[in-house]
Amino acid sequence: MLIECIPNVSEGRRSEIVTAMADAIRAVPGVHLLDFSSDPSHNRSVFTLVGDAAGVEAAVLALFDRAIAAIDLRTHKGEHPRLGAVDVVPFVPIDAATMADCVALAKRVAATVADRWHLPVFLYEEASTNPARKNLEDIRRGEFEGLAVKMQAPEWAPDFGPATPHPSAGAAVIGARMPLIAYNINLATNRLDVAKKIAAAIRHSSGGFRFVKAAGFMLDDRGIVQVSMNLTNHEKTPIFRVFEVVKREAARYGVQVLESEIVGLVPAAALHAAAEYYLQIEGFKPDQVLENRLKMRSEK
Amino acid sequence: MLIECIPNVSEGRRSEIVTAMADAIRAVPGVHLLDFSSDPSHNRSVFTLVGDAAGVEAAVLALFDRAIAAIDLRTHKGEHPRLGAVDVVPFVPIDAATMADCVALAKRVAATVADRWHLPVFLYEEASTNPARKNLEDIRRGEFEGLAVKMQAPEWAPDFGPATPHPSAGAAVIGARMPLIAYNINLATNRLDVAKKIAAAIRHSSGGFRFVKAAGFMLDDRGIVQVSMNLTNHEKTPIFRVFEVVKREAARYGVQVLESEIVGLVPAAALHAAAEYYLQIEGFKPDQVLENRLKMRSEK
Repeated sequence: MLIECIPNVSEGRRSEIVTAMADAIRAVPGVHLLDFSSDPSHNRSVFTLVGDAAGVEAAVLALFDRAIAAIDLRTHKGEHPRLGAVDVVPFVPIDAATMADCVALAKRVAATVADRWHLPVFLYEEASTNPARKNLEDIRRGEFEGLAVKMQAPEWAPDFGPATPHPSAGAAVIGARMPLIAYNINLATNRLDVAKKIAAAIRHSSGGFRFVKAAGFMLDDRGIVQVSMNLTNHEKTPIFRVFEVVKREAARYGVQVLESEIVGLVPAAALHAAAEYYLQIEGFKPDQVLENRLKMRSEK
Repeated sequence: MLIECIPNVSEGRRSEIVTAMADAIRAVPGVHLLDFSSDPSHNRSVFTLVGDAAGVEAAVLALFDRAIAAIDLRTHKGEHPRLGAVDVVPFVPIDAATMADCVALAKRVAATVADRWHLPVFLYEEASTNPARKNLEDIRRGEFEGLAVKMQAPEWAPDFGPATPHPSAGAAVIGARMPLIAYNINLATNRLDVAKKIAAAIRHSSGGFRFVKAAGFMLDDRGIVQVSMNLTNHEKTPIFRVFEVVKREAARYGVQVLESEIVGLVPAAALHAAAEYYLQIEGFKPDQVLENRLKMRSEK
């Protein structure tokens, strides 16, 4: 049973500190650090790690230990909104893990973090116990600088930990969510209005699909436009359906889809679903994929 | 580095013998028996196993040992053509294994089998060293009963082993090939002629795709017809291209594709290729699939 975790840390400039954090994650047996990257203008780093629940828990706690010792939000500057030293920690089910496994893990880690470092923790997304505190953006609004005042309101009491921010490390947002797919569709036109109209048509916030966030951009160097998306639940809003609707909407403006691109990682199941859809495959079972069958045997 | 092997054995009625063969394969460390099935009317069993080269080699030799002891072709009856006790042994590259790895393994196993049991062995498909002896059907033509006469011709001298058949075990055909995908497309019509015409249009033998074998069938219980296919190299003749041509050919007769089905196992890469094609994904790399990235890390 594997769980992915993508902690976001408020340090993207001092590379020796980020490297030490990566080393601390790698040192946990059974945990694989798949990727990490820093953005100096955001002053923020993102780690992608995978392991069983106990391993991922140990790695995240090791990351908190280093981050709280090294980062002081009172002097931290960066373009990206943030609330704490370890800002956001989503746990994501992959393989045979369920969302319930990830919610349980998020709560366990939140309780330990609050207890060990006297840090307030807010639960978000699937781990949230309060519908008004599901969205990360809502929890983070006001940022570190506004946190002490915000937490005085009863509706912003943390799920775990003290009622006031940690002086240097602020607060953490910990939760569980589906894997996120960063997916872009490039259109064979330079008409930015078309990309923006299509983005508005498909994103949840303006009436589109439940699990799509989208915006239209110009790719100046290529003279084309892009519908840039985050797909936040590929099981309920699958890639192929979004692609087909974008293609259809583009045709309405006389525009063709040039290509699409997946940025970063994608779960195999999201690609298999697209193959099943287009090839009209009936009765397909995941254990028909050779690699899945093999994995099931290896785990016996 | 993993290799798949799908040995076909000329015994499909005495289940205790087939079960003992399966147990012998399972007893080899690091080898996974993914599947096995027997067809009594064919009097033949097919095993699907996966492991590293050394493990698969040991399992195949264990299978030969049991088969040669238990099977006598002089009294064997069955509908399926066969030449020997272990009739055909294809090695298939999966994961990071290459075709060259499988050809080398086929030749090593062939030499050992010939030497240990005084059994003639013919190499086939990618392991063949003779263009006229690449196809299994050509090698097997005449079957066990015609083998002694056939082998008197110089062009049918075996690649390894004695110049005459083994008295009870005949000969073996050992080689290397790409994974085979059993793929069917069902048409929303009861017109068998349409299925037969489409099968003829797409199969290699009558002018179609290089790596497609196809036939048209009636599915009596459903009142529809099927184009039944074997795709013998999904990299060079991909599923999506075959599907699109079948759909196009069907439209020419006013017929629609009802559904398709994959029978048995399919390599994940064949499904990923279909997703890439239909979603027009540019610049996609296999290591963007979360599961692949994870596997690469685990192997380090």
